[in-house]
Amino acid sequence: MKHLISIDQYDYQALHTLFENVSKEKYGFIESNYPKKSQIATLFYEPSTRTSASFHSAAIQLGYSVLPINEVTYSSVTKGETLEDTIRTIGSYVDLIVLRHSEKGAAKRAAEVSTVPIINAGDGNGEHPTQTLLDIYTIWKTFKKINGLTVTLMGDLKNGRTVHSLIKILRHYKVKINLISPDSLKLPKEYYKNSDIEYSIFPKDLQTDILYVTRIQKERGSKEDYKLSYDELISLPSNAIVMHPLPRAGEIPVLFDNDPRAKYFEQIKNGLLVRKALLRELLI
Amino acid sequence: MKHLISIDQYDYQALHTLFENVSKEKYGFIESNYPKKSQIATLFYEPSTRTSASFHSAAIQLGYSVLPINEVTYSSVTKGETLEDTIRTIGSYVDLIVLRHSEKGAAKRAAEVSTVPIINAGDGNGEHPTQTLLDIYTIWKTFKKINGLTVTLMGDLKNGRTVHSLIKILRHYKVKINLISPDSLKLPKEYYKNSDIEYSIFPKDLQTDILYVTRIQKERGSKEDYKLSYDELISLPSNAIVMHPLPRAGEIPVLFDNDPRAKYFEQIKNGLLVRKALLRELLI
Amino acid sequence: MKHLISIDQYDYQALHTLFENVSKEKYGFIESNYPKKSQIATLFYEPSTRTSASFHSAAIQLGYSVLPINEVTYSSVTKGETLEDTIRTIGSYVDLIVLRHSEKGAAKRAAEVSTVPIINAGDGNGEHPTQTLLDIYTIWKTFKKINGLTVTLMGDLKNGRTVHSLIKILRHYKVKINLISPDSLKLPKEYYKNSDIEYSIFPKDLQTDILYVTRIQKERGSKEDYKLSYDELISLPSNAIVMHPLPRAGEIPVLFDNDPRAKYFEQIKNGLLVRKALLRELLI
Repeated sequence: MKHLISIDQYDYQALHTLFENVSKEKYGFIESNYPKKSQIATLFYEPSTRTSASFHSAAIQLGYSVLPINEVTYSSVTKGETLEDTIRTIGSYVDLIVLRHSEKGAAKRAAEVSTVPIINAGDGNGEHPTQTLLDIYTIWKTFKKINGLTVTLMGDLKNGRTVHSLIKILRHYKVKINLISPDSLKLPKEYYKNSDIEYSIFPKDLQTDILYVTRIQKERGSKEDYKLSYDELISLPSNAIVMHPLPRAGEIPVLFDNDPRAKYFEQIKNGLLVRKALLRELLI
Repeated sequence: MKHLISIDQYDYQALHTLFENVSKEKYGFIESNYPKKSQIATLFYEPSTRTSASFHSAAIQLGYSVLPINEVTYSSVTKGETLEDTIRTIGSYVDLIVLRHSEKGAAKRAAEVSTVPIINAGDGNGEHPTQTLLDIYTIWKTFKKINGLTVTLMGDLKNGRTVHSLIKILRHYKVKINLISPDSLKLPKEYYKNSDIEYSIFPKDLQTDILYVTRIQKERGSKEDYKLSYDELISLPSNAIVMHPLPRAGEIPVLFDNDPRAKYFEQIKNGLLVRKALLRELLI
Repeated sequence: MKHLISIDQYDYQALHTLFENVSKEKYGFIESNYPKKSQIATLFYEPSTRTSASFHSAAIQLGYSVLPINEVTYSSVTKGETLEDTIRTIGSYVDLIVLRHSEKGAAKRAAEVSTVPIINAGDGNGEHPTQTLLDIYTIWKTFKKINGLTVTLMGDLKNGRTVHSLIKILRHYKVKINLISPDSLKLPKEYYKNSDIEYSIFPKDLQTDILYVTRIQKERGSKEDYKLSYDELISLPSNAIVMHPLPRAGEIPVLFDNDPRAKYFEQIKNGLLVRKALLRELLI
C-alpha cells in the first residue's frame, strides 16, 4: 500500500511522471460499480475549508464518495481516543484517508497503523505535500521546464511551511532562488544547507521568472509591511508569473488579478487536477 | 451566466414560467456522466440547517453532488480572506454556489466576481429569494391564481425579511393585504410606498384567503403574545390556508397541523421542488 | 412504516434473521435510478463521529446519498424549534433519518410524527440499538452460537448504556454473565431482575468466552484503575475474545491489538455490515 506523507517521496522522475499524468488528465471519472463505490474520508483535526474542499471536489469528479469529518475537536475523538485508533476506525469505513492534523509527524504515525492509504494534507509545522506538488506543477505547466528559472520567494520565510517545502522540492532542479523578507522572518539556516541553489537577498531589480508571495501572519509579528503595490507588480518582466498559496491578506492587490501573470487562481485549479491524479494513483 | 440574487429578477411572466415548470416537475434526475459529475457548494457563513438541507437534497435528487461548507466561521476563511477570494476559490471546484451570508449585498458582490452561478440563500437583512419563490408558488399551487386573493401577514412585520420580500413579489398581482402585528413591530413605511396594494390594519373579522404567520423573536422585544389558539385557527374560512416560513416557536399550535388548511409543511416540500427547478435552470 | 427504536423490537427469531442476512451480505449496491436517488439524513444533536461515519459509509456503500446534519446545536434548530418539527422538515427531504439525541425517548417521539423511518442512533441514557446489534452479531459470528457461552462484562456497569442493552438482548439466550466493576460503578439492581441469567461477581479465575470491556469515564469518578495489562489479556483462554465498544482510553493496551482474540476493530467492521442490512430493511 502507498501513502503520500512527504515530498521527499518525489524525485525528479516521480515529479515528471506526475506532471505528465496531470497535464493529460489521465485519470477520468470512474463509474460507480457493484459491490460498492470507493469512498475517501477527509479527516481534518484543524479547519481548512480550502484544502478539504479541494480534495472533496477532486474525489467527486473522479466518481468517488466523500465522508467529511471536519469537526474532529467536537467529536467522539475527544473522548480520549488516540489518532491511531481513529485511523483504524475510519479506515474500516473508507478506502483512503486525507488527514490534516496539528502535530508534526501525525501523517506518518497514521500511515504506520492504517489499513488504507493516507494522504498528508498538512501536519502542523511539518509538511503539506499536495500544496508543494501543485506549486511545482504550476511552474512546470507555465514554463514547460524548471531548470534555469529564477524563483523569488517573498514574505514570511521563517514560518512558511509552503516556502520551506517548495525550496526542498526545487533541489531536484538547477534554479536560482531569491529571498525577500522582513529581518525578523528570514529563512532558517537549515534551508540554505545541503543545496547547490544560489541565494541572493533583497534584489533591488526584480528580475525573476516566478514571484512566490506568502502571507505574513500578524501574530508572528513583523512591523514591516510586505504588501506589493499594483505598480510594483506590473513592472515585473512580461513573462514572469506571480504565485501565492492563498488565502491572501492584502499582499497582492485585487487590481492585479486579471493580469495574465497572476497565477494564484490557476494554482487553485491545478490543485484540483493534482489531487485528482494523486487520489487515483493511491486508489488503483 | 445567470445568478439568482433578488426576487426583483422575477416579473409576472418569469414567475409563471417557474410555476409551470415546478408543477410539471419538469427537471428530473440527471445521470452522472463522464468526464465529471456536476457539483454545487452550499457555502453558509451563517448556520441554517433548514435551507442548506433543502438545497442539498434538491441537488442530490437531481443527480448532482454537494460540497457542504457550513462552518465558514471556523475555517481558513477567517484567516483574513475576502468573500470575493473565497468565491473564486470555491468556484474553481464546483459548478454553482448557494451562498448564505450575514451581510446585505453579499450575494451581489459574490456574483460580480464568480465564474459560476450564485444563488442567494439569504444575505443578512437583505433578501432570501428562494423562500419568497416557494411562498408564492405555494399560494399559486393552492388557488391556481393569485389575483383577487386576500393575504394577511401576521407577526414581526418590522424585521421579517420573509414578509418584506413577499410583499414585494405580490406587487405583480392585484391582491388585498392585511397586516397584523404588535405596535412595536409594524411594517416599515417603505413597504407601503410605490404600490397599488390596499392595506388595512388589525381586521377584527379575519376574512382572508391566506394567513401568513411569522415568528416574533424574543430578542426583538415585543411583550405582546402573538400566538394563535387552535380555536382562532379553526374559525378561519374553510378554504383559507395558513402559512409559516418555519421554524415556529409556538405561534401555531401543533394541534392544528393535521387540519387541511395548514400548509407550512407543504411549504417545505414545495421549497424542495422550487429549488430543484432553480438549480436546473442555472446549471443548464 | 418501520422504525428501529429499541432492541426490544428484536426477539430470538428477528435476531437470527438479521444475523443470516448480514453474514450473507444479502443487501448490495443499489444503482441510482430515476426519478431520484434514496437519501438518508444523519441528524446528530450530540456529536458522534464514529456512529455518524458508520451510517454515512453504510449508506454510500448501498448506493444511497447522505444529508449530514451534525451541528444541530449551532443551527436553526436552536431558534426554538421542537424535535418534532425538525423531524417533519428533514423527513420532507430524505427517505430515512438516523437520529442521535441527548434525551431519552427522543427517537420514540421522532417516530411518532415522522413520515419516514427513524433509526435510533442513541437517545441520551436510553438506548443505542445498532451498537447492541453489532455486539451480539460479533459474538454470533465468532462462535456460531450464543447459548452456552460465558460473557464477562467489565468496567462502568452503572452508567454504561452499551452494557445494559447487551444484558437485555442476552436474555434471549441461555448464557452465564460475569460482572467486574469498581464498587461505585456496579450494575443497577434492575438489570438483575426478570432474567434467568446467572451472575457471579469478581471471578478470580477469568474463565470466559467473551470479555467485554468498557471505558470508565473520569467524570463519573472511580479512583480504581480498570486498565487491563497485556499479561492479563494474553492469559485469557485461547478461544476467548475481547470486545470493546470503543473509543478506549487505555483499558486495553495497543500491544494486544494484533492478538487474534482482539475483536474490537472487527466490531467496527461488523457495525458497518449490520447498519447496511438495517438501512436496507427499513428502506425496502
